[in-house]
Amino acid sequence: MTTSDILEQGNPATDGRAFRRCLGQFATGVTVMTAQHGEVRAGMAVNSFAALSLEPPLVLWSIRCASGSLPVFTQADHFAVNVLAGDQVELANRFAASGIDKFGTTPWTPGATGSPVLGGTVATLECAREQVLEGGDHLIIVGRVLHFTRSAGEPLLFAQGRYALSQDHPAALREVPKPAAPDTGADWSLLRLLHFASHEMSAAFDAKRRAAGLTVGQFRIYGWLRDQPRTLAQLERLAFLGNQNANDSLADLVDRGHVVRGMDGRYALTEQGHVAAVASGQRVQRFEEQVFRGLAPDDIEATRRVLGALMQRAGAGTAPPERRAA
Amino acid sequence: MTTSDILEQGNPATDGRAFRRCLGQFATGVTVMTAQHGEVRAGMAVNSFAALSLEPPLVLWSIRCASGSLPVFTQADHFAVNVLAGDQVELANRFAASGIDKFGTTPWTPGATGSPVLGGTVATLECAREQVLEGGDHLIIVGRVLHFTRSAGEPLLFAQGRYALSQDHPAALREVPKPAAPDTGADWSLLRLLHFASHEMSAAFDAKRRAAGLTVGQFRIYGWLRDQPRTLAQLERLAFLGNQNANDSLADLVDRGHVVRGMDGRYALTEQGHVAAVASGQRVQRFEEQVFRGLAPDDIEATRRVLGALMQRAGAGTAPPERRAA
Repeated sequence: MTTSDILEQGNPATDGRAFRRCLGQFATGVTVMTAQHGEVRAGMAVNSFAALSLEPPLVLWSIRCASGSLPVFTQADHFAVNVLAGDQVELANRFAASGIDKFGTTPWTPGATGSPVLGGTVATLECAREQVLEGGDHLIIVGRVLHFTRSAGEPLLFAQGRYALSQDHPAALREVPKPAAPDTGADWSLLRLLHFASHEMSAAFDAKRRAAGLTVGQFRIYGWLRDQPRTLAQLERLAFLGNQNANDSLADLVDRGHVVRGMDGRYALTEQGHVAAVASGQRVQRFEEQVFRGLAPDDIEATRRVLGALMQRAGAGTAPPERRAA
Repeated sequence: MTTSDILEQGNPATDGRAFRRCLGQFATGVTVMTAQHGEVRAGMAVNSFAALSLEPPLVLWSIRCASGSLPVFTQADHFAVNVLAGDQVELANRFAASGIDKFGTTPWTPGATGSPVLGGTVATLECAREQVLEGGDHLIIVGRVLHFTRSAGEPLLFAQGRYALSQDHPAALREVPKPAAPDTGADWSLLRLLHFASHEMSAAFDAKRRAAGLTVGQFRIYGWLRDQPRTLAQLERLAFLGNQNANDSLADLVDRGHVVRGMDGRYALTEQGHVAAVASGQRVQRFEEQVFRGLAPDDIEATRRVLGALMQRAGAGTAPPERRAA
């Protein structure tokens, strides 16, 4: 590792914002923890979940001591871990917020042990609370898994402060031996090429963004503030950012004099911020121009046709019917 | 959620393999925990890491009570959390193995508190061991973070039992307002189209695989055993599978009578297994044929040219030089 790879370092006690960004380098899934005590239900988005033990089957997660949901989770004998699917970002946002009715607008059923079980997830773990341990400003909750359910779908990720999906490692595809089929081998490599090209272009753009001194959070917030002021909650949702990342990114931009918080609680670009936001947009354009420069316009149009057709076919959930065969 | 979405469910005490698959639905990053006590160094791949507290700055992870590295981690006063980057799968495999010299072949330096710090990672957290708590067949190790380092790069993921990378949520790209640039807007949407098409094709293929009753682990193992018998360690590495997933997938295939373990420890397909492996390969071909059916061959060739050029440009780390401008 060369020193130039280091983005920031320090003591967590003196730079909390940078420390949180550093913790965000460890990617996680997203869970919603649910419990019911008497008539009171609690649900909160949590990414500090971890498997703990197989025999006995234990899992753990942690909850802020100051959390309003703490009493329910420490009083109820049971809780459920709902592992969110890739298409449940809105649900994640809802359960990350406070002061709103979370269960009223969410499909759920009571689980075998009484904890609310959310629909559409990729996994549910119904647990008995086994232990509560102290851990600084959080409590560690250990649960014994009584019943598990695994459902189809891809998991939602939270990585580097934003919601994301996982993709197969390109290197894993690189090495899969081709099926022995000379007539279609060419097509298969186009699918692999698609996967690779997509990953490489994202990485190249990320490098450009980083070279411009912008985090993803800042980059996306510039984009969403360009046309109008917005609230923190709106920015989180539109930019697929976690609350802490949205908060910290805004704080950075406020420190920089690029964003101000209005009386109505909405954030707006300053004149200087508007210049930076426009420059950020132009960076995207320049990247595109460079990437496609020198390629034949006919080839680009053909690529657009092919990708558009692939998307339609995949999106419809089925490949085209057999009878269309040549 | 319809019942048909449920793949399996049960009691963890009676079906450990299915329970582990269920736990794999929660995606994680991959860390290597390192410590040194006297002259003895320990390092192990761990994905049970979680942030715990901000004030004081605490993190936690868990270690099997039966782990050979346990004495070093419970005796050393410090440890380091090394958060692996997307290109460190080989390093992850090395530190997941036992009985090999892990530090001899890995670039590392002694950190400020004496724990080995690995190079090329996306983050390092140097910690003082604060607490050791019991948790079934594991111990929970709580550390106080004394120094953090965040480095450039994308994190390695472990999701559904295999190594993976994260990708921006397609829905996040869908909503970014286009820069006001009519002349290049068309190009930008091709990049977005690329991202979408890649994601959608992967999802469509996954659905096909699942409909055929195959897990990703089984699918990849069929592919890698078709030409020759291989050891568990080889299969893990070639198929980008975690040890537990490779183990469990093989056990499933052995139960099914498709794979046998030879005297030399290598796994081989049975006659029945070979038939299944060939059928699995043909499924890939049929998918490709269906996906590209009816598209103009010239368009497909043009797409191949464009994606190939994009990959070369991105792979070279730079877009083509300005002077190539038309």
